Amino acid sequence: MLLDKNSKSLSEYPIGFFDSGVGGLTVMRELIQVLPHENVIYFGDTAHLPYGNKSPSAIVEYSLNSAHFLAAQGCKLILIACHTACAYALESVQAALPIPVLGVKEVGVRDLKAATKTNRIAVLGTAATIASAVFQNLLKSYQLFPIACPLFVPLVEEGFQDHEVSKKIAEHYLLPLKNTGIDALLLGCTHYPLLAPIIQEIVGASVQLIEPSRSVAFATKDLLEKKNLLRQTGMPTYRFCVSDNPEKFRHLAKIFFPYSVDKVQLV
Amino acid sequence: MLLDKNSKSLSEYPIGFFDSGVGGLTVMRELIQVLPHENVIYFGDTAHLPYGNKSPSAIVEYSLNSAHFLAAQGCKLILIACHTACAYALESVQAALPIPVLGVKEVGVRDLKAATKTNRIAVLGTAATIASAVFQNLLKSYQLFPIACPLFVPLVEEGFQDHEVSKKIAEHYLLPLKNTGIDALLLGCTHYPLLAPIIQEIVGASVQLIEPSRSVAFATKDLLEKKNLLRQTGMPTYRFCVSDNPEKFRHLAKIFFPYSVDKVQLV
Repeated sequence: MLLDKNSKSLSEYPIGFFDSGVGGLTVMRELIQVLPHENVIYFGDTAHLPYGNKSPSAIVEYSLNSAHFLAAQGCKLILIACHTACAYALESVQAALPIPVLGVKEVGVRDLKAATKTNRIAVLGTAATIASAVFQNLLKSYQLFPIACPLFVPLVEEGFQDHEVSKKIAEHYLLPLKNTGIDALLLGCTHYPLLAPIIQEIVGASVQLIEPSRSVAFATKDLLEKKNLLRQTGMPTYRFCVSDNPEKFRHLAKIFFPYSVDKVQLV
Repeated sequence: MLLDKNSKSLSEYPIGFFDSGVGGLTVMRELIQVLPHENVIYFGDTAHLPYGNKSPSAIVEYSLNSAHFLAAQGCKLILIACHTACAYALESVQAALPIPVLGVKEVGVRDLKAATKTNRIAVLGTAATIASAVFQNLLKSYQLFPIACPLFVPLVEEGFQDHEVSKKIAEHYLLPLKNTGIDALLLGCTHYPLLAPIIQEIVGASVQLIEPSRSVAFATKDLLEKKNLLRQTGMPTYRFCVSDNPEKFRHLAKIFFPYSVDKVQLV
């Protein structure tokens, strides 16, 4: 990109987020706290949600399309705010784009390693994320208990996060963790922080829940600083785009995001 | 279509089914009972499942693509085995294709009308089906209670159909039916027959559950007879195609379908 006196500084360009739907807003929420001046474009690939029950090749294709859309909007950095997309497509997206691309998985793995003392840990994720074995491969020297929790996303999206059935379903999923002696558990899906109180109650206070969004925000800050791309002052602008059903996105955003999402653009 | 002595009889051509996933297999199961000699191609548009939380325009687009795929395979008749697709796209698909296209909604409505004596009835469906108001429009002279049950599909697909949480969630959804005096209830989604025992228990024995699959099979038989397209003898062939994740389809098919689904083709 060529810059002259009239062009805006590269730091003014937005950070691009993508997820299959609204879940990535839990990551954006943290980013806003850590980087309050950054402009953001959030893309929810709602025409293809949920990624969690699609095939590997479909997830790679959808992720590349989402990332290309964000790159075409002039993003200075892309954040894949979806564990399923990261599991299958982080490297493909990084290879396909000339701008930095960050995901949620390495940071989550780093925090998990830092938290455990017993080296016995658990990872919860969508069916696709767990089937990818990405965490199993990144955590080979640990005793890892990976658990697919496919009903958590629909439960959260239907507003059941505080309902007794969510606790029953969580108990069903987390039963294999009983007596394993784990001391750290990664919430490996951006929807799961909304079920954190229930999960914590079931696994007990001795297990530290790792929710990587805050660490992802700090990793993003570090990278922007290193590349001299940090936007340090001024009011930010946030733009929300989806590939289907903007009304539903706007409605669901309220569950995930404390700020108003007034305008959602269908692209 | 031109026929000469060497071409096969039109009755040999298959019936085409489509649904966003496996749900339509509950309709195919009934059709096989009523029409045991018919060849069938089943298409699950799994790249876009579930239709139930997509926008109207997306549902129409996906349905047209699915129907065109089946027409291109030489189907003599298409059956839209998905209430959400029927709610939004039945007329568009009928207008777009030169072959007969049947849906599940009119038959369901007819059975519902025949069953009720109090004229107080309920319809359960996906969020999109209920939002379409299709049943509200077809049943204007009845006191209708339409209820969206968005968690029923994931519960069934995750094997929770006999689990206590499905009963709790069904109780939550069906609470508004208490003291309404309904005497008939349409299972307006092809997944819901698997939850029929739970639903029946909650609404009570005085409410007749309408599951239109069997009636759809007879309506198909009538139409084929009228058009002289019935295949009356011989072993049938069944072909299963999907737009994503054939392995998952094969696995899920076991819940819905008592026959073996060995080969699933990705198209």
